Amino acid sequence: MIVILRPDTAEGRIKQLIAQIEEKGVSIHFSRGVHETILGLVGDTTHVDEDWLRAIDIVADVRRISEPYKLVNRRFHPDDTHIDVCGRRIGEGTFAVMAGPCSVESEAQLLGVAQAVKASGATCLRGGAFKPRTSPYSFQGLENQGLALLREARRVTGLPIVTEIMSEMQLDDFADVDIIQVGARNMQNFRLLKELGHSKKPVLLKRGLSSTMEELFMSAEYILAGGNDNVILCERGIRTFEKMIRNNLDISAVPLIKAKTHLPVIVDPSHAAGIAWMVEPLARTAIAAGADGLMIEVHNDPQKALCDGAQSLRPDQFDALMQDVRRRAEFEGKAMQ
Amino acid sequence: MIVILRPDTAEGRIKQLIAQIEEKGVSIHFSRGVHETILGLVGDTTHVDEDWLRAIDIVADVRRISEPYKLVNRRFHPDDTHIDVCGRRIGEGTFAVMAGPCSVESEAQLLGVAQAVKASGATCLRGGAFKPRTSPYSFQGLENQGLALLREARRVTGLPIVTEIMSEMQLDDFADVDIIQVGARNMQNFRLLKELGHSKKPVLLKRGLSSTMEELFMSAEYILAGGNDNVILCERGIRTFEKMIRNNLDISAVPLIKAKTHLPVIVDPSHAAGIAWMVEPLARTAIAAGADGLMIEVHNDPQKALCDGAQSLRPDQFDALMQDVRRRAEFEGKAMQ
Amino acid sequence: MIVILRPDTAEGRIKQLIAQIEEKGVSIHFSRGVHETILGLVGDTTHVDEDWLRAIDIVADVRRISEPYKLVNRRFHPDDTHIDVCGRRIGEGTFAVMAGPCSVESEAQLLGVAQAVKASGATCLRGGAFKPRTSPYSFQGLENQGLALLREARRVTGLPIVTEIMSEMQLDDFADVDIIQVGARNMQNFRLLKELGHSKKPVLLKRGLSSTMEELFMSAEYILAGGNDNVILCERGIRTFEKMIRNNLDISAVPLIKAKTHLPVIVDPSHAAGIAWMVEPLARTAIAAGADGLMIEVHNDPQKALCDGAQSLRPDQFDALMQDVRRRAEFEGKAMQ
Amino acid sequence: MIVILRPDTAEGRIKQLIAQIEEKGVSIHFSRGVHETILGLVGDTTHVDEDWLRAIDIVADVRRISEPYKLVNRRFHPDDTHIDVCGRRIGEGTFAVMAGPCSVESEAQLLGVAQAVKASGATCLRGGAFKPRTSPYSFQGLENQGLALLREARRVTGLPIVTEIMSEMQLDDFADVDIIQVGARNMQNFRLLKELGHSKKPVLLKRGLSSTMEELFMSAEYILAGGNDNVILCERGIRTFEKMIRNNLDISAVPLIKAKTHLPVIVDPSHAAGIAWMVEPLARTAIAAGADGLMIEVHNDPQKALCDGAQSLRPDQFDALMQDVRRRAEFEGKAMQ
Repeated sequence: MIVILRPDTAEGRIKQLIAQIEEKGVSIHFSRGVHETILGLVGDTTHVDEDWLRAIDIVADVRRISEPYKLVNRRFHPDDTHIDVCGRRIGEGTFAVMAGPCSVESEAQLLGVAQAVKASGATCLRGGAFKPRTSPYSFQGLENQGLALLREARRVTGLPIVTEIMSEMQLDDFADVDIIQVGARNMQNFRLLKELGHSKKPVLLKRGLSSTMEELFMSAEYILAGGNDNVILCERGIRTFEKMIRNNLDISAVPLIKAKTHLPVIVDPSHAAGIAWMVEPLARTAIAAGADGLMIEVHNDPQKALCDGAQSLRPDQFDALMQDVRRRAEFEGKAMQ
Repeated sequence: MIVILRPDTAEGRIKQLIAQIEEKGVSIHFSRGVHETILGLVGDTTHVDEDWLRAIDIVADVRRISEPYKLVNRRFHPDDTHIDVCGRRIGEGTFAVMAGPCSVESEAQLLGVAQAVKASGATCLRGGAFKPRTSPYSFQGLENQGLALLREARRVTGLPIVTEIMSEMQLDDFADVDIIQVGARNMQNFRLLKELGHSKKPVLLKRGLSSTMEELFMSAEYILAGGNDNVILCERGIRTFEKMIRNNLDISAVPLIKAKTHLPVIVDPSHAAGIAWMVEPLARTAIAAGADGLMIEVHNDPQKALCDGAQSLRPDQFDALMQDVRRRAEFEGKAMQ
Repeated sequence: MIVILRPDTAEGRIKQLIAQIEEKGVSIHFSRGVHETILGLVGDTTHVDEDWLRAIDIVADVRRISEPYKLVNRRFHPDDTHIDVCGRRIGEGTFAVMAGPCSVESEAQLLGVAQAVKASGATCLRGGAFKPRTSPYSFQGLENQGLALLREARRVTGLPIVTEIMSEMQLDDFADVDIIQVGARNMQNFRLLKELGHSKKPVLLKRGLSSTMEELFMSAEYILAGGNDNVILCERGIRTFEKMIRNNLDISAVPLIKAKTHLPVIVDPSHAAGIAWMVEPLARTAIAAGADGLMIEVHNDPQKALCDGAQSLRPDQFDALMQDVRRRAEFEGKAMQ
Repeated sequence: MIVILRPDTAEGRIKQLIAQIEEKGVSIHFSRGVHETILGLVGDTTHVDEDWLRAIDIVADVRRISEPYKLVNRRFHPDDTHIDVCGRRIGEGTFAVMAGPCSVESEAQLLGVAQAVKASGATCLRGGAFKPRTSPYSFQGLENQGLALLREARRVTGLPIVTEIMSEMQLDDFADVDIIQVGARNMQNFRLLKELGHSKKPVLLKRGLSSTMEELFMSAEYILAGGNDNVILCERGIRTFEKMIRNNLDISAVPLIKAKTHLPVIVDPSHAAGIAWMVEPLARTAIAAGADGLMIEVHNDPQKALCDGAQSLRPDQFDALMQDVRRRAEFEGKAMQ
């Protein structure tokens, strides 16, 4: 960590500050120039608060050099993490496809879609029971009844289920969900993250719409810091100025996550663009970028979907996509599972 | 609402769609041109789901014309809403100043700051007991002990207290808080918003870092839809590309909120820039823009603050600011209270 | 185009407006509802100015439905455009690789890199003679001497050359450049675009850092409207909030350009991230997305490059990349040329 | 400037790098820690290229500490710059109002508006002769005839004129323009900036739509580096995600420009929101923020304006605004001139 001091700071004040910092267990290298005076903090600065330093009147600026995340940091954990989901392995070298409807709407709808996506080769069933909707007047999900239908679909198809949690109050209800999804709007719901850290459940952590990579990593760090290493990151599009699409898939996130962390990363091309015809080209780029899987919305009748129908594939479209996905995963040397 | 159909759609399909839409209780005007065919939906379209329409194969695009928010909409509620907080009135024509430390740190700190800001003319005491921090390694607040200290400070100074809630699980603990703050990261925590709608508590709803005005209004709509009209909106800076400041005060939000809704709006210049010296110029612009109040961080010793010290004013700086604020509020014809 | 009128507008004023609009040769469909009154403009609205309509006091809002671009619009020009560059064909079904140094620095440097990239399979030589630099104190390019060296490198290697123009004043100097590049900062230099429209030269039009797709298409429309159809679009990364990379490759741009226009599209993964190790993963995604080519910076000694060395590949790295590019282009069914 | 080296770099390589950097006339302080090794570059680093450093394999990151702008930097030029425009003084302590139509359309229109804004107290006449328009099909300005009309309006009213230049080719035609405006899209047209640096003309430099403060300052630095100190900066709104307005006035820019540079700053509230009713509240915030003036669009008949009518005030609205502006400028202790 680098602390830049204001010009013309008295020597006495500088010595005082150095002493204060050294109390925190880091050592300091001191550089004085004509225009700037610099303190280089050397050692483990994870617990040195930038805000504290910035508030000191002789401090002009603070630059963090080492990353503030440790447990998710590949530098300290060079090996890829793999997560076991009902005997399926998610992580580098494998390729997972989580597919299903945006929201669970009825037994017929869910079982129909679940059987279709399984037949096409999906490795996990997705479906929302609790839906975060911008408008209070939009369909909010079947709630606990939706969870029950997901369990039923798992029983019938054998596919593990992934579904979104909205609050730490629901943890008991989600006890037998196979992967608990934290949605983009809850990426910084820190109380929820802490509670998930005390569980051992696989967590699919979606990136917030305008979150930086570092913020995503820090949210994952909350979960790992609680003792739960089973975190899968998910890139699902960011907000940009583009008006032709709903969100903008940030494909750079995939190589960055792979380089900076040891966690698996999944791409959701359905939410990214919000347009059904773009799911396929974006899925291709995700595979090429090195993602460990896809999350794709499939609906038996997108035109009657209660949410996000515009981005859902029909089962026949999903089946065609899966043929291409398999061909490409093989090209990249990845095993579908 | 306007529905644009794909070129060359068969008449039969169009008639079928018109019938489906009319079932939802809206009437339709139909325009057919060479390049485009347009359906104009006329009536109350609040409950017509854009997503549903977009998923229909003959639909090229959907444009909402009337706003999706009703209860917060000034068009339907032309009079300004005023909110009573312990006998003080917040809303058009008055000017509130909520001041205090970023986080409650100790009895001495809180009481010291509370008495100082009261003496300078603050109308409400702010202070965080539960802190949403990006890093799990940062100070997370004194939690329930912090709430107790806030109650104590209210007893001593007579100032109403405003403090941030993190989860709907805490509602009982917040039962005697005067204004419950929903932070930027929770602006779309819909379960929390729903529960606050079932309360009658004044709610200070902070805008998310990258949220649009419409999203902010829809989140307020959640609270009003539950039956609670006591909502104060708060602009606290948005994320932009600017690197010299932490966030960027969106001053346009003030006239937009005033024009589109009937709710009071408060500006937080401390969080906006994240730099103490910018609090004063930004506070001036907030008053000129027509805001109904300010929320300002004050710390007795910013250099020892456990969070956000860099943006906190010292009590003497706050006192100087308040002299200017009073002069400007008077210039705008607003009564401090 | 949809014109939404203010509620409670007098009939007389509406009739007057309808008459004014019909004078422009479009016909109007009129829908009156309780909350809104809508005019649907049907016909060729390219020349109807939205700004003019918005300024009319009875107009609440204007929504364009048909795209404002015609000549670049795939709807009116369904066939893919191919551009001939010295006998090489750029466009759908082929794959071009433009490679070379960020800036031309010396004869030895340029010839060395040119021969290396040719040997590795590049189809075009890039190199900047005039460099747009944020700082007046940075290296600004060898200027006309740089152009001469590019001609020399073309003579030696037989590779066509692509280099950036800065002003319409330079058109004579660029007369024998094979592809004239318009940089991101000049995407809306409309005088330059107009002059390029009067030429027949192939133009590589780079997208501005924060430009929307529609703005990019409108800039291309300037060139086509002048009579020059030889336009190649280039996605080179957009500005986002991410701090780990310089710009953020917008991979969605590729399928959007392919769907909405008939022009070829090239991706520049070097400028996108600004980091050498990310060139390769981003190049992979560009191929998978359906791009018609890549533009890649190669420097014989990146550590001594006078600009953008951090994102340049060494010739051996480029050679390794090209082996992968060829394998992937073949997988996509594209011919390198 | 701070250079962070990769862990485990050999001593020999570090010594070699230090020698290379010292050749550039800066001295180096060296800090070696467990996790990081840091070089602190001390002295004038304006000419040390970050890109060059980043490309060196042993370099992990580079952080600039001192600002890369010198001539516009208040640190080295603490006194406010004032610019003389036909005997009127623009800069700290004074308040300028530049008003007039978006584009010059006819003699009657321009003279009518010019006389009206003069009567209301404007201190400068604005009007576009050359218009940068997104669409090639939109009105592009009266061009040289527009310049002639501006001269005529100056003769009649005595108001200095400000109008936008599009290219360095036009400098002769702009020889007797009083303030040459560089538009947002040309903020990084470096050839134009360089030529303006060789002139002595006052230049109004508008901030690009997505430009950072530092980029704006570097563009001004181009002009000052050429020898022309007469630069006025102009904030005119930035691109954000907000859909209710065209651009978003960045009010923080005013105090930042005042703190970091010695140049005058003007605010354009007309282009910021693009909505006539928001001009007045935004103008109020600009005055409160400390701006040295306003640029406002006024049209005698906004509904017939050939561009940007939706944001233009009528002369009577402008007159009402000016009464408020005078009252507020006086409150801030500024002299209108």
